Amino acid sequence: MSHLPKLEVCLSPALLHLYNPSETITVIIDVFRATSTIAAALDNGADRVIPVSAVDECIRIGQTTPNSITAGERDGKVAEGLEHGNSPLEYPKEFISGKCLVLTTTNGTRLLHMVKGASDIITGSFLNLGAVCDFLLSQQRPVLLACAAWKDRFNLEDTLFAGAVVSRLKDHFTINCDSARAAKTIHEHSKGKYLEYLKDSSHYHRLAGYGLSNDLEYCTTPDLHPVVPVLRGEALIHHR
Amino acid sequence: MSHLPKLEVCLSPALLHLYNPSETITVIIDVFRATSTIAAALDNGADRVIPVSAVDECIRIGQTTPNSITAGERDGKVAEGLEHGNSPLEYPKEFISGKCLVLTTTNGTRLLHMVKGASDIITGSFLNLGAVCDFLLSQQRPVLLACAAWKDRFNLEDTLFAGAVVSRLKDHFTINCDSARAAKTIHEHSKGKYLEYLKDSSHYHRLAGYGLSNDLEYCTTPDLHPVVPVLRGEALIHHR
Repeated sequence: MSHLPKLEVCLSPALLHLYNPSETITVIIDVFRATSTIAAALDNGADRVIPVSAVDECIRIGQTTPNSITAGERDGKVAEGLEHGNSPLEYPKEFISGKCLVLTTTNGTRLLHMVKGASDIITGSFLNLGAVCDFLLSQQRPVLLACAAWKDRFNLEDTLFAGAVVSRLKDHFTINCDSARAAKTIHEHSKGKYLEYLKDSSHYHRLAGYGLSNDLEYCTTPDLHPVVPVLRGEALIHHR
Repeated sequence: MSHLPKLEVCLSPALLHLYNPSETITVIIDVFRATSTIAAALDNGADRVIPVSAVDECIRIGQTTPNSITAGERDGKVAEGLEHGNSPLEYPKEFISGKCLVLTTTNGTRLLHMVKGASDIITGSFLNLGAVCDFLLSQQRPVLLACAAWKDRFNLEDTLFAGAVVSRLKDHFTINCDSARAAKTIHEHSKGKYLEYLKDSSHYHRLAGYGLSNDLEYCTTPDLHPVVPVLRGEALIHHR
C-alpha cells in the first residue's frame, strides 16, 4: 500500500509545524462556518472569495474591489464596518452571483494564511464533502486535512469532517497518522448523524446560544454545494 | 451541573499553553510505556521513581542515589550507560521492591517537567485506571488529563486512556471540552477492547516492530497495578 500517497490530519493550527505541507494538497476545514460559507458563496455564483484576517483589512479591500461584499462576524454578530455575516444562508444566488466576497473569519482564515505558499490549498466542509473527495482522488498527491479548530483548541466538527474524508478515501491513500485514525473513529461513531453528534460540542453550544441553530443544521448537511474552492493568489475560486 | 469541578483533556504537549493547570490535578498519560512502567514499579514495591529527561542525567542521579536502578530506552533498546529498559514487565516485586527507579523517557517525562510546579501531578495508565479514577473522584478538584503524545504528535493510546477516565467520571465533573468528548467517543467505540483497537496505531506498529507485543498487551490491561503515583519533589511515590 505504501506506493499510495499519504493522507494526514492536523487537529489544530498549533500542531501545524509537525507536518510538511510542501508537495501537498492542504484542505482547510472550518465547518462552523468559514469553509461552509465559502462553498455556498462560490456554488451560488460568487466570482471569488477573498479571505482576510482582520476587519480593517476586510474594509480596505472591499473599498478598492469593484462589486464586492464585505463580511465577517465577531462574537456572533456582523463586525462593525462590515456589511454581512458569516452564514452560508446569507449568500443565495440572487444576491451573491457575480460578486466578490471579502470574508474575515478568525480561525479558518488564520490557518489558510499559515499554510499559504507552502502547498496547494482547497477548502472543505460538509456542504462540499463529495466534491472535495472526488478532487483529492483525482489528484493522486499527498493530502493534509487541516482543522481550523477554535483559537488553537481541538474541535469536534472539523475533526468529524476530516473523519468523513478519511472514511471515503482510506483505500486510496497511505494512512499512518493517529489523528486520521481518531477522526475516522469519530466519524464512524456518529453514524452519519452529524448534527446530532455535534449537539454536545463547544462550538454548537456557543453558536446555538447566538440563535444560529439553522446555520448549524445547514452546515452539517452533505453535498448541498458541490464545489472545490481553490486558492489562486489571494482569492478562492472554483476549481475548473 | 456547573458547580462540579471541570475536567479537560490536553491531546499534546504542544497544546498545553491553552490550559491553566494551576489549582488543578494534572494526570500525565504515557500508556506506551512510561506511566505503565511507573505504575508497575511502584505497585511492586519500588520506594520511588525519579523521572528524568536525559540519559546522562539518569546516569548521574543513579550514581548518587543509593539502591537505585537506572532505566530508559531509545529507539526500543536500553540506552547506552543505563541498566534496564522501559518495560513494566522488567520490574517484578523480587527485583524492584525497596529500590529507587531512575527512569528516563522521551515524551512522558518531558510533559511532566513542563507541568511541574503548576499543579498537583499524578500519572495514569490502564494498569492503574481504577485507582486514578477513584482518587480523582475523592478530590473534587479540577482535572487536566494530559496526553504525552509522540514528539508532540497526537496519539491514540493516550487519548483512549483519557477517554476511559472521562467515561467513568463524566457524571461527577463539568465537561465542556471537545478533546474530552472526542476521547470519550474513541473509548466508547473501542468497546473496551483496547489492544484490538490500538493494533492500528502508529505507536503499536512501531513498538510491535521492536518485538514488544507482550508489553503492549500488558500495558492495555486495566487495573493490574492499582496505585496512584503522585509527584513529591523530584520523585513519584505512592499516594497514601
